[in-house]
Amino acid sequence: MVSVQASRSIPKATDAQKLELLSKVKCFIFDCDGVIWLGDKVIDGVPETLDMLRSMGKKCFFVTNNSTKSRAGYMSKFRSLGLNVSAEEIYSSSYAAAAYLESINFKKKVYVIGEVGIQEELDMKGIRHLGGPGDADKRVTLKSGEFMEHDPEVGAVVVGFDRNINYYKIQYATLCIRENPGCMFIATNRDAVTHLTDAQEWAGNGSMVGAIVGSTKREPTVVGKPSGFMLENISASLGLKPDQICMVGDRLDTDIMFGKNGGLTTSLVLSGVTTEEVLNHPDNKVIPDFVLPALPDLLTVKEKAMVAA
Amino acid sequence: MVSVQASRSIPKATDAQKLELLSKVKCFIFDCDGVIWLGDKVIDGVPETLDMLRSMGKKCFFVTNNSTKSRAGYMSKFRSLGLNVSAEEIYSSSYAAAAYLESINFKKKVYVIGEVGIQEELDMKGIRHLGGPGDADKRVTLKSGEFMEHDPEVGAVVVGFDRNINYYKIQYATLCIRENPGCMFIATNRDAVTHLTDAQEWAGNGSMVGAIVGSTKREPTVVGKPSGFMLENISASLGLKPDQICMVGDRLDTDIMFGKNGGLTTSLVLSGVTTEEVLNHPDNKVIPDFVLPALPDLLTVKEKAMVAA
Repeated sequence: MVSVQASRSIPKATDAQKLELLSKVKCFIFDCDGVIWLGDKVIDGVPETLDMLRSMGKKCFFVTNNSTKSRAGYMSKFRSLGLNVSAEEIYSSSYAAAAYLESINFKKKVYVIGEVGIQEELDMKGIRHLGGPGDADKRVTLKSGEFMEHDPEVGAVVVGFDRNINYYKIQYATLCIRENPGCMFIATNRDAVTHLTDAQEWAGNGSMVGAIVGSTKREPTVVGKPSGFMLENISASLGLKPDQICMVGDRLDTDIMFGKNGGLTTSLVLSGVTTEEVLNHPDNKVIPDFVLPALPDLLTVKEKAMVAA
Repeated sequence: MVSVQASRSIPKATDAQKLELLSKVKCFIFDCDGVIWLGDKVIDGVPETLDMLRSMGKKCFFVTNNSTKSRAGYMSKFRSLGLNVSAEEIYSSSYAAAAYLESINFKKKVYVIGEVGIQEELDMKGIRHLGGPGDADKRVTLKSGEFMEHDPEVGAVVVGFDRNINYYKIQYATLCIRENPGCMFIATNRDAVTHLTDAQEWAGNGSMVGAIVGSTKREPTVVGKPSGFMLENISASLGLKPDQICMVGDRLDTDIMFGKNGGLTTSLVLSGVTTEEVLNHPDNKVIPDFVLPALPDLLTVKEKAMVAA
C-alpha cells in the first residue's frame, strides 16, 4: 500500500512573529553565505537590516568555519563588500580554537596544521605555537634510522584547513598526539568541502582532520560549527539564555540543526540553498522557529520594532 | 565482590600437533615482521623451515601492507636478508589493489595516491593510471576563479602510503570520487602507523585514507590486511578451502583475527610482539589454533613430516 502523506506548508513569519522575534532575541548569530551575501555580492537590504538590529541594541555575530583568516583578516572580506563590522563581531573557527584554549587556561604550546588565521588568533591570546605555514616546505627523507624530533611541550594540536598539508606536518602532529601525555587534538571544523573559489567545491578541513584521525585513532574536539563550544562561549560571555540567541542560516541540516541542538531560537532564510519545497518536503524533520524569505524582510516591521525597543 | 578468574595456559604445539598442521595445511600465509625477520635480521632457522615447507609442496605467501614497493621491488628486501623468494610469493597491498581491479575486469583509469609500487603493479596488469609520484610537486594556487580539471575517465582512486601527499592530490582524488559516476575508492590498507624506519613509528596509510574519507564522506574498499579480498584471491587461485590455508603471525588482534575471520587455520608465533603472558591473559579473546615459540620450531618434526608427505 502506498501511503500518501498530506503536503504541509510551513508559513513565512508574519509581521507579528517578526516583532516577537525582535522582542525576545538579544543576540543574532549569522551564517554568512546565503544569509549576508551570495558569492561576492551582499544581499540587498542587509546593511540596513544590520543597522536596525544594532540600533535596537542587538548583538550580532558573523560565523564562519573558514579558519584560514583571523577575525582581523576576515574583516577585509566584509569591508570589501561594503559591510561595516568589528573584529569582535566575527566568529571564525580560527578564533574559536584560540577562545577554546583560553577557556581551559591552556599554558603549553600548540602545534598548528593550518594557515595564518590560526596563528594570528593564538598570538592575540598569547598562546605559544609552532608549525603552520612555517612547515609548508618541510620534507621527510625516511632514510635508514631517520628519527623525527618533536617538542614535548606541545599540549595541543590544532587542525584547520591547510593548502600546504604535507607528510612532515602529519607526522609531527601524530607524534605530539600519540607521545605527549594529555596532548589534545582540536579541529576548527570537519567540513567535507569548502568554497575556496566560486568555480568548484574544494576538499575541506575534513581532509586534514581525517589524516590525523587516521594515524592517531583519536577523535578531535571540534570548536567550530556544529559544535556546542561556540554557542556556550557566546552565551556565557553575554550572560544570555540560549533562547535569547537566534541562529540565522540558510541550511536546515547544518545551521538550523546546530541552533536547535543548542536550544537557540532559529530562523531559516530562503535566500540561500534551501528552497520552500525542501523546507515543506515530508522528509524534512528540521523545522525552524521562524522562516524569512531573506534577512531584510525584518525591515517591514522596522518602525514598530524601533518604537517597542 | 571481586571475581578472580582462573589463570589459563594455552599450550604450545606438541610434535603431534605440528604434524597435524603440516598434514592439513596446503598453503601458508606469513606476516613478515616478527615471523620471518625481526627488524633487519632473519630469525634463525627460517630459511631451512621455508625450504622444508616448499619441499613438502606447500605454497607460501609473504604478506605485507606496505604498498610503496611492487612485488618485484619487495624482492630485494628478501634477497638482502638472504631469503630466496619469487615475486609470486609476495603479496603486497600494492599487488592486492591491482589484483582486485583485475578481478572485477576494470577497464577505466586509476588515479593513484601512493608511490611507485602501486604504479608498477597496475602496469603489470595493463591498467591505465595517473597521479602518484608525478603529482608530488604540484601545488594549488586557489586564486579567484581557480578550477581544477579532472579526467572523467578515472573510474577508481587507489590510496596507498604516500610520503608526498599534498593538497593537489587530495583535491584531485576528491573530484574523481565525488563527480565521476560510479568511481571507486580503494585503500591498500588503513594502518594507523607503519615502521618506515626502525627509529620510530610513522603515520601510516590511515592518514592518506582518512584525508579522502574526510572530504568525500565515503568509506573505501580495503584490499590489504585485514580485508577478505586477499584471502579469497589466494584460495580461489589455488582451489583450496579456507582451513587448508594457515595464517602465521605474531599479532593476535590483526594477523590471527584476520585469519580467523576468513575461516583459516591460524598459528601464532611468539617470536614477535605477542608474549605468552598476553596470550594467556583472561582479557584475550583471540585463541589461535596453534602456538609456536617461533616458525623454525616446525623443524623438530622435519623427518617425520617429510616421510609423511
